[in-house]
Amino acid sequence: MNKVVIFGVGLIGGSFARALKKAGAVRSIVGVGRSAASMARALELGIIDAIGVAGEPASLAEALRGADLVLLAAPVAQTEAILAAIAPHLDAGTVVTDAGSTKSDVVAAARRALGGKVAQFVPGHPIAGRETNGPDAAIDHLYIGKKVVITALAENSEADVERVAAAWRACGAIIHRLTPQEHDKVFAAVSHLPHLLAYALVDDIARKPHADLLFQYAASGFRDFTRIAGSSPEMWRDISLANQPALLAELDAYMAQLTQLRAHLAAGDGAALESVYSNAQHARHQWITAIETAEAPASQDKAD
Amino acid sequence: MNKVVIFGVGLIGGSFARALKKAGAVRSIVGVGRSAASMARALELGIIDAIGVAGEPASLAEALRGADLVLLAAPVAQTEAILAAIAPHLDAGTVVTDAGSTKSDVVAAARRALGGKVAQFVPGHPIAGRETNGPDAAIDHLYIGKKVVITALAENSEADVERVAAAWRACGAIIHRLTPQEHDKVFAAVSHLPHLLAYALVDDIARKPHADLLFQYAASGFRDFTRIAGSSPEMWRDISLANQPALLAELDAYMAQLTQLRAHLAAGDGAALESVYSNAQHARHQWITAIETAEAPASQDKAD
Repeated sequence: MNKVVIFGVGLIGGSFARALKKAGAVRSIVGVGRSAASMARALELGIIDAIGVAGEPASLAEALRGADLVLLAAPVAQTEAILAAIAPHLDAGTVVTDAGSTKSDVVAAARRALGGKVAQFVPGHPIAGRETNGPDAAIDHLYIGKKVVITALAENSEADVERVAAAWRACGAIIHRLTPQEHDKVFAAVSHLPHLLAYALVDDIARKPHADLLFQYAASGFRDFTRIAGSSPEMWRDISLANQPALLAELDAYMAQLTQLRAHLAAGDGAALESVYSNAQHARHQWITAIETAEAPASQDKAD
Repeated sequence: MNKVVIFGVGLIGGSFARALKKAGAVRSIVGVGRSAASMARALELGIIDAIGVAGEPASLAEALRGADLVLLAAPVAQTEAILAAIAPHLDAGTVVTDAGSTKSDVVAAARRALGGKVAQFVPGHPIAGRETNGPDAAIDHLYIGKKVVITALAENSEADVERVAAAWRACGAIIHRLTPQEHDKVFAAVSHLPHLLAYALVDDIARKPHADLLFQYAASGFRDFTRIAGSSPEMWRDISLANQPALLAELDAYMAQLTQLRAHLAAGDGAALESVYSNAQHARHQWITAIETAEAPASQDKAD
């Protein structure tokens, strides 16, 4: 590609830039962001080659002129505003993608903001680290062996989808394709619900009058179980709201499961408890074995 | 001590034996267990100096004669039977302790099995590893820097409690004291409930028709959250039932918390969600900072 524009040059956007450069897959990268200091730092680090100023239409137009690919890697709450700002300056040959953790809401925002140009938007979700941020966190190998889910729209041309896929493949990622709805159902179950459950447990304990005593005896099992409750509250508030319908459905299924387990426990039904525990242990063991086989030497992915 | 008897010479019992020997805190250790092969292996490894045969009263009597301390480290479901078997052979000078993860039920079992000799039983719970087992898993440093909770009975003499405490201290452990009821409430919240929740989530996902698709996208957050669902289903069935009242109370409190979070989510109340998430993140951060300060270089404790 000749020119790539990245909105938000932190861990996700900056690592995308570094990986593309390392692969020789891009000639020039323009970074756009709200923080002038971050942009200057990204330039200084050689992650980007030029800076576009988000609030200035002329600068935005200049940044976008002749771009092959635009990646939105700013906080998801800004997605619609960014799309609305770039819509007037979008060349017919430019493809836009994003890195948001939810997809149905992003698609809806894109339809509102881009209107007739929505065919140029190919939604994506790289399943990779989110625990550090800023340009200094960007690394060129973040995406090696990681999954990127592309949730293409009916309007997308296969060539535009392939341009996004090829860029991620150049970063070392493995492309998966789901519909936006499938994506959101899947991540509600394996990521968004666990986050909500972990936050709920720690908050529950922290609000008890004897919280200090409780935390004193919490050990490594508790530490691992609650690690995701160390994630950004703002980011997970946004994800929870963005994926509200799917998350509510998963939460309801889980609460029904707890209600049933509670009944087994209250009845002293050891066989029923053991059946749930042992099905879970077995399924988890199979899963771990499968990922250890597949991701053999790599596997350092953080958060999702 | 001159003589220590250990029922169950696996990770917990065997590591206690190795640590006592390393500290020079015991002259001779007798191991008693249901598996002749395990006992022979423990003898071969030098963990124990002699074997007592569980099913033979004469051998048990011989094993217990003049013992300073008896540790029950067999599966907790065997506790009452072991106590009943040793009761007739217990010297007045012998102190008995255990390593069970629940305490109210153990105390009740001890009262039934030991009757008038219950004052000789000082219940305990070492907060240390349970993921591997057998004599080969035993190591001399398992308890260094780890907590051992002693839940003394009103009938215990301070000297008997101190004998148990001193033995664990010789293994490098730090002694804490709680009542059996406090102990069970605390561990229901920070250990037993998280196990139940993790098992419930994995079972919930594994039973869905599209389970394979879901597991395919589960990443490291899910892996850590569900690590404890890899624990022994039989052991956690027993712990759940043994601590049923306290676990039910914690589960109810947690389900009330989820019901409230569900209402916030359904109402799209981002501020309320963020308040829970951010209280949890803050509390967890404080807790991690506190334990990292306290346990500075050590800290490898597994399961609880």
